Amino acid sequence: MKKGLLIVVSGPAGSGKGTVNSHLLATDDFRFSVSATTRAPRPGERDGINYFYITREEFEKRIENGDMLEYNFYCGNYYGTPREAVERVLAEGKNIILEIDVNGAKQVKEKYPDAVLIMLLPPTFAIQEARLRGRATEDEETIRKRLEQTKSEVPHFLEYDYVVYNYDGGADRAAGDILAIVRAEQLSAKRNPNTATHYFEK
Amino acid sequence: MKKGLLIVVSGPAGSGKGTVNSHLLATDDFRFSVSATTRAPRPGERDGINYFYITREEFEKRIENGDMLEYNFYCGNYYGTPREAVERVLAEGKNIILEIDVNGAKQVKEKYPDAVLIMLLPPTFAIQEARLRGRATEDEETIRKRLEQTKSEVPHFLEYDYVVYNYDGGADRAAGDILAIVRAEQLSAKRNPNTATHYFEK
Repeated sequence: MKKGLLIVVSGPAGSGKGTVNSHLLATDDFRFSVSATTRAPRPGERDGINYFYITREEFEKRIENGDMLEYNFYCGNYYGTPREAVERVLAEGKNIILEIDVNGAKQVKEKYPDAVLIMLLPPTFAIQEARLRGRATEDEETIRKRLEQTKSEVPHFLEYDYVVYNYDGGADRAAGDILAIVRAEQLSAKRNPNTATHYFEK
Repeated sequence: MKKGLLIVVSGPAGSGKGTVNSHLLATDDFRFSVSATTRAPRPGERDGINYFYITREEFEKRIENGDMLEYNFYCGNYYGTPREAVERVLAEGKNIILEIDVNGAKQVKEKYPDAVLIMLLPPTFAIQEARLRGRATEDEETIRKRLEQTKSEVPHFLEYDYVVYNYDGGADRAAGDILAIVRAEQLSAKRNPNTATHYFEK
């Protein structure tokens, strides 16, 4: 059976990553990677759904053993992608989506050069800012931090393979763009090195 | 306005190139490159539709002037792609399809590294052979020649970017695959080097 694709989707706050990815997960070809973290669950969060909640000791042991595909230390806690779960999904022939930041994406590409890196963006920075203020779930300080982070992350787009825009109300279109990317990657000549052999032998 | 994509579609006899490409041309985003040739028009063929019919002297002058994007000399006649027509279509923001062989594809990629090279194949060599015999428009000698040519061309697939299969009755699916490839290429980060500048300036 053919292996699935490892797909990284990075996007700033307000890019609508969650909505776009939920369109993809509605098909049976995609799975979502659940990260591990050392932070405590928030009310309503469930182990194995939002995150795998593990101790700092356990997390550091996994890093040492090479069991984390990528990880970050952020605001006093670790966040990372457990390697084994990702490999299991790929072996089943399903594509797996990792929703991680620029730093994590870089670590994944180093370990998995075959990974497909997609940066998801709002149409413009001005629209991103309007979206963040519009949803009014964060205070001014948090919004400012997220916009600063965007300024440091977007210039890394050339380390990505693709840039997809999520227009207002266009999450299905953005998801369609990602499906087109996945199809094209599956058809790429270099991912199918046995093409000629199969063609003449079958 | 954004430039269109130069798309090369190569495929052995029986791959169904013509049918697949006609699906693409039905949309307004694609144009088809008309080749020039020194051979005489066959009954029913029209100048500017099937080929541009020009003299050998004229053809050789165009080669010297660099006006042929690619060309071949085959059975005593020249066949080639006039550069100017291709560039005009690309400048209009339309994608142009060149239906040419492996040798021509190589010449195009050297002159236009941005070209997207697609090899279109029947599902297997056995099915290709059955299709050629089934359509019964060619004698045994011609069929044998075409199959030999296939054996020498398919092993060059790694010089192509993508391999698309045309299953029986599946020309619309193959056309859909090519549309996905075109969409993905349009979204590739390296084709959009001004992404960050546009994002923050708009």
